[in-house]
Amino acid sequence: MPYRAPTSELAHCLDDVVDFGQVQGTERFGEATQDVALAILDEAGKLANDAIAPAQRQGDLHPVRLENGVVRTSPGYIDAYRAIAEGGWVGLPAASEYGGMGLPQTLNTAVTEFLSGACLALAIKPLLSQGQIEALEAHASEELRATYLPKLVAGTWSGTMNLTEPQAGSDVGALRATAEPKGDGSWAVTGQKIYISWGDSDLVENVCHLVLARTPGAPAGTKGISLFLVPKILPIGHGALGPANNLKVVSLEEKLGLHGSPTAVMSYEGASGWLVGEEMGGMAAMFTMMNSARLGVGAQGVGVAEAATQHAVAFARERRQGKAGGTGAIIEHPDVKRMLATMKAETFAARSIALACAVAIDMGHATESEAWRARAALLTPIAKAFGTDVGCRVADLGIQVHGGMGYVEETGAAQFFRDVRVCAIYEGTNGIQAIDLVSRKLADGGEAAYRLIDEIEADVEKIRDVMPEAAQAVWGAAETLREVTEWLVEEKMEARLSGAHSYLMAFARVLGGWYHLKSAFGGDPARRAVSDFYIGRLLPEHEAHIAAIRIGGADLQAITPDHFA
Amino acid sequence: MPYRAPTSELAHCLDDVVDFGQVQGTERFGEATQDVALAILDEAGKLANDAIAPAQRQGDLHPVRLENGVVRTSPGYIDAYRAIAEGGWVGLPAASEYGGMGLPQTLNTAVTEFLSGACLALAIKPLLSQGQIEALEAHASEELRATYLPKLVAGTWSGTMNLTEPQAGSDVGALRATAEPKGDGSWAVTGQKIYISWGDSDLVENVCHLVLARTPGAPAGTKGISLFLVPKILPIGHGALGPANNLKVVSLEEKLGLHGSPTAVMSYEGASGWLVGEEMGGMAAMFTMMNSARLGVGAQGVGVAEAATQHAVAFARERRQGKAGGTGAIIEHPDVKRMLATMKAETFAARSIALACAVAIDMGHATESEAWRARAALLTPIAKAFGTDVGCRVADLGIQVHGGMGYVEETGAAQFFRDVRVCAIYEGTNGIQAIDLVSRKLADGGEAAYRLIDEIEADVEKIRDVMPEAAQAVWGAAETLREVTEWLVEEKMEARLSGAHSYLMAFARVLGGWYHLKSAFGGDPARRAVSDFYIGRLLPEHEAHIAAIRIGGADLQAITPDHFA
Repeated sequence: MPYRAPTSELAHCLDDVVDFGQVQGTERFGEATQDVALAILDEAGKLANDAIAPAQRQGDLHPVRLENGVVRTSPGYIDAYRAIAEGGWVGLPAASEYGGMGLPQTLNTAVTEFLSGACLALAIKPLLSQGQIEALEAHASEELRATYLPKLVAGTWSGTMNLTEPQAGSDVGALRATAEPKGDGSWAVTGQKIYISWGDSDLVENVCHLVLARTPGAPAGTKGISLFLVPKILPIGHGALGPANNLKVVSLEEKLGLHGSPTAVMSYEGASGWLVGEEMGGMAAMFTMMNSARLGVGAQGVGVAEAATQHAVAFARERRQGKAGGTGAIIEHPDVKRMLATMKAETFAARSIALACAVAIDMGHATESEAWRARAALLTPIAKAFGTDVGCRVADLGIQVHGGMGYVEETGAAQFFRDVRVCAIYEGTNGIQAIDLVSRKLADGGEAAYRLIDEIEADVEKIRDVMPEAAQAVWGAAETLREVTEWLVEEKMEARLSGAHSYLMAFARVLGGWYHLKSAFGGDPARRAVSDFYIGRLLPEHEAHIAAIRIGGADLQAITPDHFA
Repeated sequence: MPYRAPTSELAHCLDDVVDFGQVQGTERFGEATQDVALAILDEAGKLANDAIAPAQRQGDLHPVRLENGVVRTSPGYIDAYRAIAEGGWVGLPAASEYGGMGLPQTLNTAVTEFLSGACLALAIKPLLSQGQIEALEAHASEELRATYLPKLVAGTWSGTMNLTEPQAGSDVGALRATAEPKGDGSWAVTGQKIYISWGDSDLVENVCHLVLARTPGAPAGTKGISLFLVPKILPIGHGALGPANNLKVVSLEEKLGLHGSPTAVMSYEGASGWLVGEEMGGMAAMFTMMNSARLGVGAQGVGVAEAATQHAVAFARERRQGKAGGTGAIIEHPDVKRMLATMKAETFAARSIALACAVAIDMGHATESEAWRARAALLTPIAKAFGTDVGCRVADLGIQVHGGMGYVEETGAAQFFRDVRVCAIYEGTNGIQAIDLVSRKLADGGEAAYRLIDEIEADVEKIRDVMPEAAQAVWGAAETLREVTEWLVEEKMEARLSGAHSYLMAFARVLGGWYHLKSAFGGDPARRAVSDFYIGRLLPEHEAHIAAIRIGGADLQAITPDHFA
């Protein structure tokens, strides 16, 4: 079955679960009325279903390739990308002065989910440009903004993010690329960067690389890092193309999946670049791009989870085996239903967390409230790690629902499983997200976490009359989360890091329970049934995570590297 | 790092964890002395390390292919398979009258783990022959045994299992292949079979297919199924090769992984076959083969888990990132250590369960005790499903430990992840295993389960003085498992099926806790540390599974197929 964007499910989440109305009520996003929001969902859904989804299998069957230094994309990618660019979707959240729509990140997150469900390999590309647009809006000079933003917003040029070097993966501070001033305001950037998604392609006229490098005399570590904009082709004036820059694609990686997306090794050989933000302020500028991308990657996980679920449900409806009740289709078998219900319940939870994170980002922008900004910062690592974990887990269940056919590539279930796996790794591995959560995001002594838990508990109280048992389960889990947070913020960093993964998962489980309750509260029997399933079967995992956090890392300290011999 | 068979770990499991001494104390297996056991582990380890492991990457890089009806294996497979066959490893558990070693299944399970860790795609092949040997020993006529067994045991011929048809996967009873008597004692077998692992190859002189088919007038469903031995080439006398039979490989599947293992669509067009067992007694004969294969597949999962763990540990020792203590290698990072410890602890648990199942099989053979047979029957689905789940989960963590490099095929982490995924599907999906556990294996009213839980609790009491907290955790989990078993056996089948997956997982968690306790009891600090990690972080998952079982399926019944629309 071909992918169908879940537009009405998204509308339900926005209205009934994450309170998108708050965003619509702000002055900044007042234009994102209900009509506009529904029209965006509707149009993005059509785009995903009709223009993007057909590219998905093509990318897997006919991988992108490097031919004589030129990256040739898979069949159908040029048309599919054009539909995204010409529809103005790259610029959905961008400022109107550069041609963007200026719409909330929340709607953009919904669109990212749709595009990712339709074709993850291609959906990465506009997401990277959006991150770059945001970084340039916030940190670039007026001249750079005027030159680059209209092209990036229009999608005729695209953006990349160049952090990783062979010796510097999660440890960005170890990077060695250099930038020397050329005396004319530009810099000569030199170095090799790896894992550059969409490092080049035949989809756009120009590729704009944001490259982290060290300026002369810069200190070691992240403090000495600056950010440079390094275009593939040097612009002349505002938008015309001049000579090629001194950079090239060295090779493309052979990956587990995402065969339609070029992952490049890039070489910069004294390439001309322009500083973005302050010298040695590169990490701040890069984080603007990365935080936006992290939420986007969480939404990618949700998109693939939705697509894999649709694919498995369609199969389970048609496939007849044994003496299942009703139609005889395997969808009636309890264990198959358990797998499908898990897929649906987890996808909903991950989607709601991603959208709630987006709402907090929008509210932070619209109100400049520190509380909203802290909420967004708290939710970002959870949205990224849980969303992508769910993507991986749901795609895995999708294979299992298919039985033997799931292992055969022709069926398509395996592609979701291969493609989505990278989402748990890129833009900061999920381990890095968990570390971010227990270190930077709890550096406020847990204030942002407590505020969110307060809100959950107050909200659950309103629901208690209608669904007493489910409400109590969520309330109890939230209270346990509060207690473990209080304990964790008093612990040393080693203990926090040892419980980081479990803390992130425990937090996500509570959020998922809360959003499921809210979803069921409207009275729809299907939503109620999935909510009960989640709260009965998945929320209890919370306890095991809490137990793991409470150990405080003594168990890990007792294990030495020698023990793995 | 190349694979190294964990011989001393296996020796520890046999001696200190699963009490292999019981098997060695029987008359039947008295020759499997400690010296013999250690020599087998040692020799099998060398075989795996030196002769088999080099084939693993070759199979992935240069997949097996069908050329003009002939299956050509990957480079190095012919030599690697020859080392297995000429070493006598196919016949390790086979009766000595046909040239086998007559050694316990427990040692064979260890060998299967080693071969699977070294090269899963190839290790499948001898395992299938072993299952066929066992089925023929138990059910075939003297004439068939005399003709086929010496060749199969020597590995010059090999065996396959032909159950699945396009419309009949998990529902074997829906198969349509037919067999007509030819009047000379042989039958004409006609039909198409899919997913036939090693359906043909250039590794052996002859391929012997065990094919399920219906005889004329046979009733529908599994009761009307008979089993036939259908050789690729018709034998003349005892071992000479005559004309080709009327069967062929139609095509090979393109799979997610296991590219070195041919998965064939087989067509039988009035092929000559010989009845194995009674007419319409095919399922019983097939189950002999399948039960043996199920434990073997569990051991495959363990083997890949071990290999993926070694691979990730080697990477984590070398890779330096950030400010980790000690050497600066990422193995010192708490979250990386958590992943590696999970891999190690889960692999140990799954290995112990597989070996305990094998011990029960051997004790059943040696003593003909119904209690041991029931123990083996109870443990088989757990060994298969948990062992392969662990294989998949550990390979997944192996990718994550590698970060971005894990997603690049060159690293090799992704191959484990792709290869092992099928183990959770073939020989009965893990869902089918769970259903088997809560239906057939609890049909005794829980007697076999209670006997095992009694043994666990009594054993834990002996350990309580030394490790009071860990012992109490395992004892409590075992008691909870007893209570939920008592509850489950009184429930209707719908409720059992709804909790099947969780019941299997809960049982596995308790067994894993018990075996870890036993392992730690010897006082080795490394084993103690891994045991504490498992009992502290992984055993508590048990509770969530118990909660899911106790729901009794009401949540799944509330979800209708329409709810997935």
